[in-house]
Amino acid sequence: MSSLTSPQISAEQSAREADLVATVVASFDGAEDARLKQLMQALTRHLHAFVREVRLTESEWEKAIAFLTDCGHITNDRRQEFILLSDILGISMQTVAVNNEAYANATEATVFGPFFVADAPRIDIGGDISGGAPGQPCWIEGSVKDTEGNPIPGARIEVWEADEDGFYDVQYTDDRVAGRAYLHSDADGNYAFWGLTPTPYPIPYDGPVGKLLEAVGRSPMRASHLHFMVTAPGARTLVTHIFVRGDELLSRDSVFGVKDSLIYDFEQHAPSEAAPDGRSNAGSWASTRFDIVLAPASEPAS
Amino acid sequence: MSSLTSPQISAEQSAREADLVATVVASFDGAEDARLKQLMQALTRHLHAFVREVRLTESEWEKAIAFLTDCGHITNDRRQEFILLSDILGISMQTVAVNNEAYANATEATVFGPFFVADAPRIDIGGDISGGAPGQPCWIEGSVKDTEGNPIPGARIEVWEADEDGFYDVQYTDDRVAGRAYLHSDADGNYAFWGLTPTPYPIPYDGPVGKLLEAVGRSPMRASHLHFMVTAPGARTLVTHIFVRGDELLSRDSVFGVKDSLIYDFEQHAPSEAAPDGRSNAGSWASTRFDIVLAPASEPAS
Repeated sequence: MSSLTSPQISAEQSAREADLVATVVASFDGAEDARLKQLMQALTRHLHAFVREVRLTESEWEKAIAFLTDCGHITNDRRQEFILLSDILGISMQTVAVNNEAYANATEATVFGPFFVADAPRIDIGGDISGGAPGQPCWIEGSVKDTEGNPIPGARIEVWEADEDGFYDVQYTDDRVAGRAYLHSDADGNYAFWGLTPTPYPIPYDGPVGKLLEAVGRSPMRASHLHFMVTAPGARTLVTHIFVRGDELLSRDSVFGVKDSLIYDFEQHAPSEAAPDGRSNAGSWASTRFDIVLAPASEPAS
Repeated sequence: MSSLTSPQISAEQSAREADLVATVVASFDGAEDARLKQLMQALTRHLHAFVREVRLTESEWEKAIAFLTDCGHITNDRRQEFILLSDILGISMQTVAVNNEAYANATEATVFGPFFVADAPRIDIGGDISGGAPGQPCWIEGSVKDTEGNPIPGARIEVWEADEDGFYDVQYTDDRVAGRAYLHSDADGNYAFWGLTPTPYPIPYDGPVGKLLEAVGRSPMRASHLHFMVTAPGARTLVTHIFVRGDELLSRDSVFGVKDSLIYDFEQHAPSEAAPDGRSNAGSWASTRFDIVLAPASEPAS
């Protein structure tokens, strides 16, 4: 219990509060779905523990109701404030952690985020995902292997990222498709493509979650990153990012998505330097290598 | 941890999850408002403990986001689904419990509910609050005293209730004012008024909270009750209900508002029986006595 409040609670008062928790927990006893019963009873216990620990005041409760209401009212088909809330509380990342336990040398997972699109264009190996989006060209190459080192040919690799102005294509209103594509690993399990050097951007902060971040002195900025989702038969689907070593935001990513193993060196190249695929670039460009290791698919939950 | 899941978590995995909690908690360290910092850090700890304990799946997380979104979208000026959610999880009642600790023989508090209106009409002692609302007439009388037994004259007594069809006036669309009023205790601290014998009604169950109740096999019905809010200088404001002894819903009130000390006998009377104030009633009527004891106002929070 925090030292800020922690008033002395009488044994009688404590018993009244505990009795209420037990009554609410028991109200779910009749649920036919055993998992739903478990979820609701555990949620009840943890939420009541919070209220009792902080001695939530009635005006704080009213503010919480108003906050959730505001989150609901700003949420629409293009904006999801509850996901942002989950993100900035680390709940999204904890859910990822719980569902993607470390497995041998498999590449670590991180948050999915709200900007994936299912029908991105297909590119060949060496193709360009940028679709005209502004930013520094970046050559990304690597391999896809299993945890025993065997190459995985034909793995489907979805990649998506924000442009250098900090926006994903779906955040514009002109239906552009840019900064996203999918490709397949080749017969040796290798892949390569042109994208953009990742740059930092804020999560949407003009709503209640942004106001909360401001009130607690936190930045809405995400560390620079490029999204990957890699699928292959027999493998656990990998949803992850790669981050840019040296980015000052690595230690204070607003959604807690950074893992040390996902930080990569992005090498800077002069315009005159030949690109791996011979493409000539008008300006400077960057390159990195991201070797992907997929865990085996887990047994179906029993 | 529940026996339903409780997979074996490796020490390494557990450490990763605990590290994430610590990182999120630390992200609030810079909050200038010490209370807000405490609230957010405690909320983080309890929500993460929930996710970790139940091993929340990614599809369950998605359903939770969709549920909150649905709650937000059905909420408007006349409908507050987040309060309903708080109510059916017992969080509203726990907040009441935390903020209204038992004090000597003071009358116990219960939930405020969403149906209070600030500008209800004033009645004199012995007046009628029903305003034409359908239901059995009920004479309610009692005293207002402090915990040492001294009468409190001039206490403001707000009362409100649903009609026998289960609706408060504000749930109709015709701007009626019925089933609500305020009066003051007299020079001896006594009060009396005509209302309606309380009848049971469901909380609104045509939204996501109603679906949740149905999924877990719980009823949306509230035990029959009449609302009171009593204020007097130097006294702690009392927000409470009185419930009807014998109501079969007392043990499964959907919002957990019932306390044994708030259950009263409602005596039934034949139409021919003379009412306490001499009023003649065309049909049967009821009566009850509710003696109110107010705790002293607490010291301002330090």
